Amino acid sequence: MSTASSTFLVLDLTGTFAFALNGALTALRVARVDIVGVVTLGMCTALGGGIIRDILLNALPPATFSDWRYLTVAAGGGLVAFVFGGHLNRLAKPILILDAAGLSLFAVSGALKGLQHGVGFSQAVILGTITAVGGGTLRDVLIREIPSVLTSGLYAIPALLGAVVVVAADRLGAADLPISIAAAAVCFIVRMLGIRYDLDAPAPPGSKRGA
Amino acid sequence: MSTASSTFLVLDLTGTFAFALNGALTALRVARVDIVGVVTLGMCTALGGGIIRDILLNALPPATFSDWRYLTVAAGGGLVAFVFGGHLNRLAKPILILDAAGLSLFAVSGALKGLQHGVGFSQAVILGTITAVGGGTLRDVLIREIPSVLTSGLYAIPALLGAVVVVAADRLGAADLPISIAAAAVCFIVRMLGIRYDLDAPAPPGSKRGA
Amino acid sequence: MSTASSTFLVLDLTGTFAFALNGALTALRVARVDIVGVVTLGMCTALGGGIIRDILLNALPPATFSDWRYLTVAAGGGLVAFVFGGHLNRLAKPILILDAAGLSLFAVSGALKGLQHGVGFSQAVILGTITAVGGGTLRDVLIREIPSVLTSGLYAIPALLGAVVVVAADRLGAADLPISIAAAAVCFIVRMLGIRYDLDAPAPPGSKRGA
Repeated sequence: MSTASSTFLVLDLTGTFAFALNGALTALRVARVDIVGVVTLGMCTALGGGIIRDILLNALPPATFSDWRYLTVAAGGGLVAFVFGGHLNRLAKPILILDAAGLSLFAVSGALKGLQHGVGFSQAVILGTITAVGGGTLRDVLIREIPSVLTSGLYAIPALLGAVVVVAADRLGAADLPISIAAAAVCFIVRMLGIRYDLDAPAPPGSKRGA
Repeated sequence: MSTASSTFLVLDLTGTFAFALNGALTALRVARVDIVGVVTLGMCTALGGGIIRDILLNALPPATFSDWRYLTVAAGGGLVAFVFGGHLNRLAKPILILDAAGLSLFAVSGALKGLQHGVGFSQAVILGTITAVGGGTLRDVLIREIPSVLTSGLYAIPALLGAVVVVAADRLGAADLPISIAAAAVCFIVRMLGIRYDLDAPAPPGSKRGA
Repeated sequence: MSTASSTFLVLDLTGTFAFALNGALTALRVARVDIVGVVTLGMCTALGGGIIRDILLNALPPATFSDWRYLTVAAGGGLVAFVFGGHLNRLAKPILILDAAGLSLFAVSGALKGLQHGVGFSQAVILGTITAVGGGTLRDVLIREIPSVLTSGLYAIPALLGAVVVVAADRLGAADLPISIAAAAVCFIVRMLGIRYDLDAPAPPGSKRGA
């Protein structure tokens, strides 16, 4: 339990910084926001998914809100984006990779937290996915974009796969650190393949997205 | 209590499917969404109102999230919309009627759940209304539409009326299954009259909506 | 504790009316909404920040939802805006002042409620700020505006300053009614200076907002 907890912490703080940075940079690209907006949107991207997860789990106050380390890391990611925004655009590729790592870490840590609270299979998978994509969805709503996770690309699906792997392993009695790493790797690889080959989730039959 | 609970379940599952189907079809019409978007938006429409209600009631984790039957029925409604979307447009009228039934069921079951948790008159009425219109509002925000419930038509008002009837009856000591059905009927009839005669809720004085 | 509670009540009800009125008027200016929309958006503006605060604090059901006085005052503010909307535009200046007063009161009362629940320094400051700006943010999302608090003007920053003053005073053992009034005054003065001299929060380096 204690090892699991400290694994959680490391996973979550790493993902938190990556998400805050990438979330704030996305906000800067799309909307004309000031320092309040950049930092707020970075923090929403980083912490939003975990907060929604904790509300659904009745694990309130939310872990990431109660712990000053999460708040500091998230605010720091937003501030770095605010100060270095223009220059970081050159780092678009590494930041995309960092974001994929955050996605993988959040999907797994979110699903594991669900399991720790005794929820069922589907619920743990949904919680992992929400932890991974919820913050970016919140940010997109705040800057008046249709959340990209709902329209194209492979973003929710890798998160879902990572969560399924870790939850299934737990059901088979095998949820341990190596399994968590494997589950995160599944999510990360699918996400990177999606970026590399520009893959989309299936569109509705008859829609002309590809035309 | 047990009868009331099982009545709740039947009411809620029926409404859940209708809302998921109609919510996903609305998303398909308005936005260019993929399978993740269609199913997510269907589930948000179906489960969102009840989840907001349960947060406000401190009845966490939310009933519809904890119970796999709700998740399955809601995901099923979204998938049906995804697969048969184009063909279902011919069924617009029956689906509108099904949605009105869902509205009525959710308004009544939401208000009753509030009463079971001991909230006051206004709170129970608000909770019934939120249960009925909250999910659709959430979907509209996610697909970047101003929620239609705020702008025109009769949607929140029938739900409010249905909730008032069942809460008032409870205050008079008469809340029972026949009363619940009567309250849902009030909501359903007002909603259908609103559709049939294209009625709108009152616009602000001086606005030129009718011109 | 009892004095603190009754101070809370007066602060909160005053701010609630101001926010509902101003929030509903903003909705009327920006979107074509009906009576349901005006009253709902007024209530969201007035109650939304406190509800988000109470979710994060695990102080559910939310205080403003459980207490009929908040609901009545908020609905009343929305209805006044609906009925007198056109005429109130002449009162834009007094309403802006009233809104600044609401901002100040909410920032302080929100931070104090956080402290009463034993949260840390940063959390109390964030909760005060969210109480002050959360409702308006929710309203802007619902009417499909990018929340103005994220883009320009001084709105979140005065609230943050007011919250910092009251939380810092509490840490120094000095949190009492006069300190609360001083903290609210700091927020109010900075907000009014921002309006008077058209001040903005810092924009990202290299952005051409001023050009």
